[in-house]
Amino acid sequence: MKATIFRAPGDVRVENVPDPSLREPTDAIVRVTHACICGSDLWFYRGQTPFEPGWRTGHEWMGIVEAVGAAVRTIKKGDRVIAPFAFSDGECEFCRKGLQTSCLHGGFWGTTNDGGQGEMVRAPYADANLVVLPPSLENDAVLLKSTLPLTDVMGTGHHAAVCAGVRKGATAAVVGDGAVGLCGVLAARRLGAERIIVLGHQPGRMKLAQKFGATDLVMSSGQEAIGQVLEMTKGGAQAVLECVGTSDALNSAIGVCRPGGRVGFVGVPHHSTEMDFRRMFYHNIALQGGVAPVRAYIPDLLADVLAGRLDPSPVLDMTVDLAGVPQGYKAMDSRQAIKVMVTV
Amino acid sequence: MKATIFRAPGDVRVENVPDPSLREPTDAIVRVTHACICGSDLWFYRGQTPFEPGWRTGHEWMGIVEAVGAAVRTIKKGDRVIAPFAFSDGECEFCRKGLQTSCLHGGFWGTTNDGGQGEMVRAPYADANLVVLPPSLENDAVLLKSTLPLTDVMGTGHHAAVCAGVRKGATAAVVGDGAVGLCGVLAARRLGAERIIVLGHQPGRMKLAQKFGATDLVMSSGQEAIGQVLEMTKGGAQAVLECVGTSDALNSAIGVCRPGGRVGFVGVPHHSTEMDFRRMFYHNIALQGGVAPVRAYIPDLLADVLAGRLDPSPVLDMTVDLAGVPQGYKAMDSRQAIKVMVTV
Repeated sequence: MKATIFRAPGDVRVENVPDPSLREPTDAIVRVTHACICGSDLWFYRGQTPFEPGWRTGHEWMGIVEAVGAAVRTIKKGDRVIAPFAFSDGECEFCRKGLQTSCLHGGFWGTTNDGGQGEMVRAPYADANLVVLPPSLENDAVLLKSTLPLTDVMGTGHHAAVCAGVRKGATAAVVGDGAVGLCGVLAARRLGAERIIVLGHQPGRMKLAQKFGATDLVMSSGQEAIGQVLEMTKGGAQAVLECVGTSDALNSAIGVCRPGGRVGFVGVPHHSTEMDFRRMFYHNIALQGGVAPVRAYIPDLLADVLAGRLDPSPVLDMTVDLAGVPQGYKAMDSRQAIKVMVTV
Repeated sequence: MKATIFRAPGDVRVENVPDPSLREPTDAIVRVTHACICGSDLWFYRGQTPFEPGWRTGHEWMGIVEAVGAAVRTIKKGDRVIAPFAFSDGECEFCRKGLQTSCLHGGFWGTTNDGGQGEMVRAPYADANLVVLPPSLENDAVLLKSTLPLTDVMGTGHHAAVCAGVRKGATAAVVGDGAVGLCGVLAARRLGAERIIVLGHQPGRMKLAQKFGATDLVMSSGQEAIGQVLEMTKGGAQAVLECVGTSDALNSAIGVCRPGGRVGFVGVPHHSTEMDFRRMFYHNIALQGGVAPVRAYIPDLLADVLAGRLDPSPVLDMTVDLAGVPQGYKAMDSRQAIKVMVTV
């Protein structure tokens, strides 16, 4: 089969690799139909986080089941399934608590596992991880596209909103206008936020944020942006979603948070973080979040997507085929695209 | 009157200053009978945080009301009262939420306000801040001493336990064996923790921790201590109380926290903090806490002290009179004393 391989910073290639096969009775083999390139893929693409030459790429994908192991109970050949970006055993203490990303036997797609940016994936613990979509979606390309972001960005934006404690009537601030930040806007609106302030820089993305439910756009930076939000909220937003993963973004999030409020953080920290700990201390600002247990959120979010109440698909503003994956990375790296969909 | 004045690092003096007088109709004047020296007083005493020569010291005190302003309703001359270490107006958004330390018109005793380490205090917003004790305490020196830590350390330890999410049956870890850490042990036990692991270094204090309810003592440092706690808990404590305020302590707290758990932090951060943000991210460890809204906690904790169910007084292991305050600072700075009570 063909799969995307990381060769060096700035260099990902679609190459021939061996087809996967069932190894454990709990495995499934899935033929990938749709995948994405993630903002977090750019960290290794830019050489900012360690990644070995030869490793597979892609952690967001959906497809059709080709084969299942003898112990698989809920998934069968021919099912269309989506997967969360991290797999888990579904049985350990953390899986039972809905924190599947801390699973004692879990992992992420890509690296030494099959990646989503390829033709097929061996999926461990198929029952625990794969979520079957209704057969009616097979002829609905629009709804399939709306479902795809549940594999990561929509669940991650939702995690930020949940961790920030967004509630009905809340004032929320979202730091970041990337795909996760935009999904954070959708999530905050879905959880009932009345006012949603977005801090970002890209006019096109900010326009989409507005379409998604943002009520206020702040396009300045650093202390100026913080000052603006503190003024417009008379002291800060109760719930802040940090959707970038840099020190600046985290400190902006802490800076615009109201005393006693919460920062929900989901931006992947890709370097050492110096944070404004004094403000957190003197104003009892809580920090909660991390890698999103997307598996726990798929059922609820999927119900809303299928019912037409939630549609994160506009974040997928460019489509490539598998051969076009390297071009997709380039487009995201240069910010020509918010997020790239790969049709395999 | 006499009051303690900061002159320079290592140099506090009891000097003559003007008597305070009622300035606002909501003020009370209180004659101090008991005060404390706080671990956080050592930061300015050691020159580690900015403090102006001439500023007053002492934020933990109780006493007898001498006079009240015309608008004071619930406090009268002759009442014995205790005060939280931060005063607040009792009316703003944050006071109504129980976060009096973020009060829009609040402040701390000492600096340019009267301090507790002196003969008298002008107490603003007397109705909001002062809590009247039963007259029966007047002849009960033991119970008076048990009540005094509610002004700060006992409420602060309780805040750490609340923010860490300690519940019935929980495994809690307490980082720090100072007065706040010891009160954190009492608080964790009071909230129902079944196992309480204390990380500390001073044998005498660790013995007291055990008396207060600690079930496990860890006296190693850094990664060794983290490893020990992870092993004895098979993966970390769900609730961790950070009661020191250094980077090392914070990172130990994050290090021993179970995935999905919470670090309740109350140690005053007295320098820039580099924290193990990656572990927080990859294991969804939440950080919540800050300066404790002790005023909100006094009623509940006081009820338990008066009923004999809670007694933090053993942390006050040395007593001086007002003239002895400089000696008290020396004793705490050299760790001869855990915490010093001042009888005025």
